[in-house]
Amino acid sequence: MAQMSESESKKKPFAGLYQSAYYFLPFYGTNAHKKPIFALNKTINMTKVYQNPPQSEWQMILARPASASAPQTAIKQIFDAIQAQGDVALVQYSAEFDKFAGVWPVSEDELLRAGGQLSEALKSAIEVAYQNIKTFHEAELPKQIRRETMAGVVCERRAFGIERVGLYIPGGTAPLFSTVLMLGIPALLAGCEEVVLCTPPQSNGAIHPTILYAAARCGIKKIFKIGGAQAIASMALGTATVPQCYKIFGPGNQWVTSAKQYANGLGVAIDMPAGPSEVLVLADAALPAFVAADLLAQAEHGNDSQVMLVTTNPALPEQVLAEMDRQLKSLPRAHFIQETLKNSCFLLFENKETAIEAVNFYAPEHLIVQSEYEDWYLPRIRNAGSVFIGQWSPESVGDYASGTNHTLPTSGFAKAWSGVSVESFMKFITFQTLSAEGLIAIGPVVEEMAAAESLDAHARAVSIRLAFLNE
Amino acid sequence: MAQMSESESKKKPFAGLYQSAYYFLPFYGTNAHKKPIFALNKTINMTKVYQNPPQSEWQMILARPASASAPQTAIKQIFDAIQAQGDVALVQYSAEFDKFAGVWPVSEDELLRAGGQLSEALKSAIEVAYQNIKTFHEAELPKQIRRETMAGVVCERRAFGIERVGLYIPGGTAPLFSTVLMLGIPALLAGCEEVVLCTPPQSNGAIHPTILYAAARCGIKKIFKIGGAQAIASMALGTATVPQCYKIFGPGNQWVTSAKQYANGLGVAIDMPAGPSEVLVLADAALPAFVAADLLAQAEHGNDSQVMLVTTNPALPEQVLAEMDRQLKSLPRAHFIQETLKNSCFLLFENKETAIEAVNFYAPEHLIVQSEYEDWYLPRIRNAGSVFIGQWSPESVGDYASGTNHTLPTSGFAKAWSGVSVESFMKFITFQTLSAEGLIAIGPVVEEMAAAESLDAHARAVSIRLAFLNE
Repeated sequence: MAQMSESESKKKPFAGLYQSAYYFLPFYGTNAHKKPIFALNKTINMTKVYQNPPQSEWQMILARPASASAPQTAIKQIFDAIQAQGDVALVQYSAEFDKFAGVWPVSEDELLRAGGQLSEALKSAIEVAYQNIKTFHEAELPKQIRRETMAGVVCERRAFGIERVGLYIPGGTAPLFSTVLMLGIPALLAGCEEVVLCTPPQSNGAIHPTILYAAARCGIKKIFKIGGAQAIASMALGTATVPQCYKIFGPGNQWVTSAKQYANGLGVAIDMPAGPSEVLVLADAALPAFVAADLLAQAEHGNDSQVMLVTTNPALPEQVLAEMDRQLKSLPRAHFIQETLKNSCFLLFENKETAIEAVNFYAPEHLIVQSEYEDWYLPRIRNAGSVFIGQWSPESVGDYASGTNHTLPTSGFAKAWSGVSVESFMKFITFQTLSAEGLIAIGPVVEEMAAAESLDAHARAVSIRLAFLNE
Repeated sequence: MAQMSESESKKKPFAGLYQSAYYFLPFYGTNAHKKPIFALNKTINMTKVYQNPPQSEWQMILARPASASAPQTAIKQIFDAIQAQGDVALVQYSAEFDKFAGVWPVSEDELLRAGGQLSEALKSAIEVAYQNIKTFHEAELPKQIRRETMAGVVCERRAFGIERVGLYIPGGTAPLFSTVLMLGIPALLAGCEEVVLCTPPQSNGAIHPTILYAAARCGIKKIFKIGGAQAIASMALGTATVPQCYKIFGPGNQWVTSAKQYANGLGVAIDMPAGPSEVLVLADAALPAFVAADLLAQAEHGNDSQVMLVTTNPALPEQVLAEMDRQLKSLPRAHFIQETLKNSCFLLFENKETAIEAVNFYAPEHLIVQSEYEDWYLPRIRNAGSVFIGQWSPESVGDYASGTNHTLPTSGFAKAWSGVSVESFMKFITFQTLSAEGLIAIGPVVEEMAAAESLDAHARAVSIRLAFLNE
């Protein structure tokens, strides 16, 4: 634990600068390094700033905001009802939760009409995004593998699109048609035979035309006006109307998230565990206005998302906070964003080594690097979902159009999970073909090992063949 | 539903052959196609044989045997205790469940001595297996991706070994050192920084030397004498002794399996959902002795594993059952295997189209193809863990030494999951770097799309940069 004495802390350029600062974690006692050192900005007064917090405190300081989950009993009830009654139960849930009791499947006509409701500018933008996402995801298509590991022992691996996949696209105020592209394009490239899309309708049964247009662009035909946990349950279990899917993708509220987790427990694959969105900006010699804009873009996602700044530049936190304050004023959803900033956290470190360690510890979904030490930092990144390098690479570029996927591991899951890719829509099968010569060569190895594991019938499956060849 | 009248069923070569057959599912009524048609073999009398079962019955006929799971409350208790008390709780559980209260970490000396306890023949066999597994898994190492999706918009993807992974190796009567190789080699190739291995000790604290030898061969140094759910909880949560792991691999009993699932719910990745092992042999012009040997090898795994035969050759079921009967007599664990055969099921179909459909419906962990129509069948396989092609490719070859991985999706999970590979020990991070020109080109696309999703701050992160460039 890198303790710092009071006299030492006074030498830090930032220490003592804000004598009147209100410490958000007052129980932290007297060690300067444990305190948020700067938290006075009036407008965005929820941002906590720490100087050189020791590693033992990182777990607490870098904790994700708690996110709500739906009651397990209610989720189980929905699954049980749909398992037992199929569409009959689904009708009831749609009427109850989506306030919609019409026909679920989107008609071909609705799909065709969607394009007419979009501006040409938006359609062109979608086309550029589509092409970029396709270009990058095509490169992900896995290679076939074939190795003759010994003479006569040929091992292969081939990738196959998962036959039936389900995509969930949230409705609500902001129609997330970009997520349709981010899931639909890799599903198409993977060669999934059947792609099902569920999205909640408005109470008049309408789906936002941008969602329909994006789905049609990805060749998705089976679109259902179903939302929430009942949509996930339908895709997981299958009903007369909704085909059963082997893997379910997509974001959603806590009902959707909990339902996906429940489906996973039943043996249905899901894209990844869900959590609120987050960004970490690693910056030093950066334009504060750019850093502030990137942090605010993330804060816009919802009040449980998290925005972080890690820096070795003592002047930056204050400058960025001032810029956030300024920019916030002209944003339509300022009040909403301000609420989110209660989860924001700035960390000032003395050196790059500790800074990058904190980044890898946090394992951010989005990592923006605006540093004069870019070349030093980049090879040291170990845990992150997607990385945005340099001042001309704002995160929103990756959210929409650069080509990489925006469905990424949150909540530190980047330590073990990857973002969605073409491979997320595929699975591998291995194949092996032995010639008689191959079996003669490898057979005794298998017999020896099987005997050592006391698996006699395993050995026998080889011995009986070798005996036949010796006859 | 391919119903078949009584007079039709008489035309089938197999129908009526066993007039006195006992029908295992007597509630099936009078339709011949619904009944097991041949079930008279005295010794292995639990095998059910069906002729042309209609697709509507497949779900029931091909159901996996129910497998036990550990009580959730007990699992939660173990996790809670280890979370709260760490090693203190672990000492108690080790004493209680493993009957061992010694030191957990395997010493360097124990590791070094292991090799001396193995025969030279076994060490050579392990070496051949090691090299084959390494050769094949090296080929899996993912490519780096770099695409300039538009001029000035560079997108990349790099693969990284997961920093800390945990392997669980069951103890018990048969030391599964082959699983050490199947997990240890890809972990090594993936570049995981820390590989932890837990395996239950005998009550004298000894670990079987084959397990230690295989672990040492894979460069694994952190081996702990800890078993069961407490081992999984320790790796998931971390204690003073056991490092916290981001992903946990390996087979085990229902306590281990339930603990892995519980850990997964806490946000720790696991290799795949677990289920009892299974094989499906797709055969027609095959030597019954070979087919029987492959089925028996699988049956040896435990009494909840499942062995299946799918054929279009009406003579084969009876021949294989006779052969199984004969071979069973000379196997040491005959009684044990016979018990497993209650889950065995033979399906005779009229045509290849239905046969392959049933195979893909079942999605077997292991699929053996011994068919004169191999060339027809192979390109139609969609769902399987690993496929063994031709009469010289018994499944046990893949269990030990051919080079492919033996940790495979059971229980139909092959519809969406792959077996363990090098990629299982890695995760991908995407990177994007835009030049000013790149941002000028793609910026308006992002602004347009963000506006359509009502995400103003997302658009702003681009606009503020474009404005700067225009100044």
